Amino acid sequence: MEQDTQINQEDTIKLKLRRVIFGTDTRLGRYFDISLIICIILSVTLVFLDTVASINSQYGQLISVLEWFFTIVFTIEYLLRLYCSAQPVQYVRSFYGVVDLLSILPSYLALLFPGANFTLVIRILRLFRIFRVLKLLRYLSEGNVLLRAMLQSGRKVFIFFFSVSLIVMVLSAIMYVVEGPGNGFTSIPKSIYWTIVTITTVGYGDITPGTNLGQAIAAFTMLLGYSIIAIPTGILTAEISQEMGKSKDLRRCSNCLKTGHESDACYCDHCGSELEAEI
Amino acid sequence: MEQDTQINQEDTIKLKLRRVIFGTDTRLGRYFDISLIICIILSVTLVFLDTVASINSQYGQLISVLEWFFTIVFTIEYLLRLYCSAQPVQYVRSFYGVVDLLSILPSYLALLFPGANFTLVIRILRLFRIFRVLKLLRYLSEGNVLLRAMLQSGRKVFIFFFSVSLIVMVLSAIMYVVEGPGNGFTSIPKSIYWTIVTITTVGYGDITPGTNLGQAIAAFTMLLGYSIIAIPTGILTAEISQEMGKSKDLRRCSNCLKTGHESDACYCDHCGSELEAEI
Amino acid sequence: MEQDTQINQEDTIKLKLRRVIFGTDTRLGRYFDISLIICIILSVTLVFLDTVASINSQYGQLISVLEWFFTIVFTIEYLLRLYCSAQPVQYVRSFYGVVDLLSILPSYLALLFPGANFTLVIRILRLFRIFRVLKLLRYLSEGNVLLRAMLQSGRKVFIFFFSVSLIVMVLSAIMYVVEGPGNGFTSIPKSIYWTIVTITTVGYGDITPGTNLGQAIAAFTMLLGYSIIAIPTGILTAEISQEMGKSKDLRRCSNCLKTGHESDACYCDHCGSELEAEI
Amino acid sequence: MEQDTQINQEDTIKLKLRRVIFGTDTRLGRYFDISLIICIILSVTLVFLDTVASINSQYGQLISVLEWFFTIVFTIEYLLRLYCSAQPVQYVRSFYGVVDLLSILPSYLALLFPGANFTLVIRILRLFRIFRVLKLLRYLSEGNVLLRAMLQSGRKVFIFFFSVSLIVMVLSAIMYVVEGPGNGFTSIPKSIYWTIVTITTVGYGDITPGTNLGQAIAAFTMLLGYSIIAIPTGILTAEISQEMGKSKDLRRCSNCLKTGHESDACYCDHCGSELEAEI
Repeated sequence: MEQDTQINQEDTIKLKLRRVIFGTDTRLGRYFDISLIICIILSVTLVFLDTVASINSQYGQLISVLEWFFTIVFTIEYLLRLYCSAQPVQYVRSFYGVVDLLSILPSYLALLFPGANFTLVIRILRLFRIFRVLKLLRYLSEGNVLLRAMLQSGRKVFIFFFSVSLIVMVLSAIMYVVEGPGNGFTSIPKSIYWTIVTITTVGYGDITPGTNLGQAIAAFTMLLGYSIIAIPTGILTAEISQEMGKSKDLRRCSNCLKTGHESDACYCDHCGSELEAEI
Repeated sequence: MEQDTQINQEDTIKLKLRRVIFGTDTRLGRYFDISLIICIILSVTLVFLDTVASINSQYGQLISVLEWFFTIVFTIEYLLRLYCSAQPVQYVRSFYGVVDLLSILPSYLALLFPGANFTLVIRILRLFRIFRVLKLLRYLSEGNVLLRAMLQSGRKVFIFFFSVSLIVMVLSAIMYVVEGPGNGFTSIPKSIYWTIVTITTVGYGDITPGTNLGQAIAAFTMLLGYSIIAIPTGILTAEISQEMGKSKDLRRCSNCLKTGHESDACYCDHCGSELEAEI
Repeated sequence: MEQDTQINQEDTIKLKLRRVIFGTDTRLGRYFDISLIICIILSVTLVFLDTVASINSQYGQLISVLEWFFTIVFTIEYLLRLYCSAQPVQYVRSFYGVVDLLSILPSYLALLFPGANFTLVIRILRLFRIFRVLKLLRYLSEGNVLLRAMLQSGRKVFIFFFSVSLIVMVLSAIMYVVEGPGNGFTSIPKSIYWTIVTITTVGYGDITPGTNLGQAIAAFTMLLGYSIIAIPTGILTAEISQEMGKSKDLRRCSNCLKTGHESDACYCDHCGSELEAEI
Repeated sequence: MEQDTQINQEDTIKLKLRRVIFGTDTRLGRYFDISLIICIILSVTLVFLDTVASINSQYGQLISVLEWFFTIVFTIEYLLRLYCSAQPVQYVRSFYGVVDLLSILPSYLALLFPGANFTLVIRILRLFRIFRVLKLLRYLSEGNVLLRAMLQSGRKVFIFFFSVSLIVMVLSAIMYVVEGPGNGFTSIPKSIYWTIVTITTVGYGDITPGTNLGQAIAAFTMLLGYSIIAIPTGILTAEISQEMGKSKDLRRCSNCLKTGHESDACYCDHCGSELEAEI
């Protein structure tokens, strides 16, 4: 109780700021988050539009001004987070701490290393600003159900992809021998590119088989790719069905506190005590 | 009873017309609906065929006569609906009221704003006649089961699409840097177009990666697009399975409390006691 | 008993032939069926290979001799079926009766209408010989489970395809206006062809959008096609799961003879009498 | 006990080697397996990179030295397996015995048949080294669940593919007649290639329909291919769901005879009585 009264004004401000910046349970906090998201989207859109030649030549200066505006906004935000965070070092080391820093650094680096020669390098660095978009993920937590289903089926999907890549390699080697450099299959890595283009049913058409045998193998590759897509779909569907079935029943055993019972269960299958009806 | 006798002749006609035009439970009502659908399909086919140069030059006049015929038919239909509707204002404001009006307006507007210069604009307006097709939806209500499953899975599908669009943006930026304007990646928006063409496995081949690194990233993008299609499929399948399971039966056995009986079941298949009729 | 003894020798031969030709339960019948399938496959392969210019010029005469051989074999088979069938008229009118006739007619028609002018027409007729392949279907009855699931989900799939075709028509009209004849969208029917190529993720690349707005709409079309494939898959998967679940339990109620109980049912859900354990 | 003491030193070495080379339950055995897998991957990567012209001209000699190194390593491994195997003849005849031999033979054959004329043939033989990759499969046994689901659904999938190939043949013949050699459909086999490219939604665009009727049939083919992918997916998903449900649990409650408990259940969730451990 004594400690509570001893909190000086600065700490109160820090605490309030922290609730606004890191929290989402106050009205001000929500406003802060939403305006931040809008800033991120606008800034990324600017970077993207800047690469269009006609827009760059006409609005180039306006865009660079706006970009500096967003850089300063994000810098202030970063400094505020550092200031009001309970554990600043932990924030800096966290994933979003690094992303927040990476999204403002390139603009400042462009000041330190000017000159025509560095233009391309700087442009690459500026593209890292795209990581700002990743911040948006913070505001969505529903994805966990999907993520859990994907991790659950991870091992089966890995074996599937391993088998597919084996098939891709064998088919690539065969196609390289059958078609040869004359039809665009200049090397096995190029042939692997073609096989992936074909087996995923993308089919650019930049490299196409010219010989009869090659077209027959290509047809086989297509049919294979067309049908094996059913396997990861089947795995994931079965997994999602189970996840959804589990999350449906919300009853908690009053004895052992286990949740996730089957929807028609009358007794807890962990301790055997009777389950109460869902309220 | 008194009110019934007071209904004058006009009201009787209105009532009969309403049953024919808005209802589908009388033989005349069904005939009206079917002939209207045939008119809509014929009229849309006309608009479509009119854009084919060879047909337009040969049958242009016949088509424009037929189009005026359909416009007049639809105008009469619209006026009849207005006349016999119980709440005309509500009909005008409803989705189909607006669609019905939009499907006849362009032809009349073409009269008010004639001249060669307006040809293209008028053609665009005339294309709105396609909304007539949407009227057909009125006659199909089975789609509700599908719609409910899609709305149920809406939130999960949104997160999926949000994650995919983040991945698309990152990949687009990387491909723009790797490939550059030399290989057709003239700007990031163009690069986004390429990434969507690739990740959805469409693969036009109008823009294809030329560098080794670019082809490797393209192969990765294809494999990603090829496998993540499993996620929305899984979500929707699980949801449709549940919807179909739900619509199976809502009855609960009064003896053993088991639910989920088959829809044609008369007795509980767990305890053998008779099931009550669904209320 | 008297009738049995009166069966003369011809009837006995007919009966034996019928068991061999129409039945599949004797060793001779199976041999007959298998050799017929081999003949059909060989004959269809011949027709296909005959269209390859290099093979036709070199082995053309050999192929035409072999084709006459197969035509005569199939003619003898057709006459035998007519002879030994219990109801010849019913056989001639049945699906396979018509197919059997259509597969031998073209070769004889080529004799009646000779001359260079008729070459193309005759070739088309000869292609009907492909219907011989359909005979193979006779020997596979497992497809019924699939067929039933497809018919069950028929109505939902129809609504799905109806909605898709509406979307295709609207998108086609928009793309025709946006892109115009300059980029290959010469008419709305052509535009519909493009939309189907895109929405099904085939993506030939023979017609591709050239304007920025067109590419944006194309990207939207691709994402739509990429995601809505989940809907028919979901419908069919749910339906097949149910079909398979039903066919799993083979118990028959001893009271009302109902089959297709749920696998954990203890009582018949139709009459309420107890089910015996599966043997 | 007597036999144990009679085992001489050589047999002990053999036994130890066998546990290391064939087994995966000792630390040394795991180290051996992992280093072998790394060798296989490196060796296959070498073969692939060797086909790239620029790499071959620069590092050709280094690659051929490394390849001889790996050939010798794999030869020693093969001889060791022969030496310490309990049944050498059975090993030689087994799948991996043949694969192991095939992966080293080509390099030695290249010594026996030198000369420029044999270069291509030898390269083809050397590509068989890719079978080394197949060895990796030995180290993954989780794929069995997938394999079982695929075999279970094998018959249904076969009928599906048989029907699809019938449709492909009919469509190919029709397209050959409609489009003709002028649009690239030079023969029915070529037309089959086009149909498979289209029905699997690959869509290279190397052969595209030019006539209106051809484009209409192509659009139908695409929609068909787009929708029938749902069938094998549905079959496999239903099968995988069942496989996963089965592997869930085989225990039957001794009180109420309920099966299908969760794998970690200790009590029946229907009647609350204790479940016995699975045998």
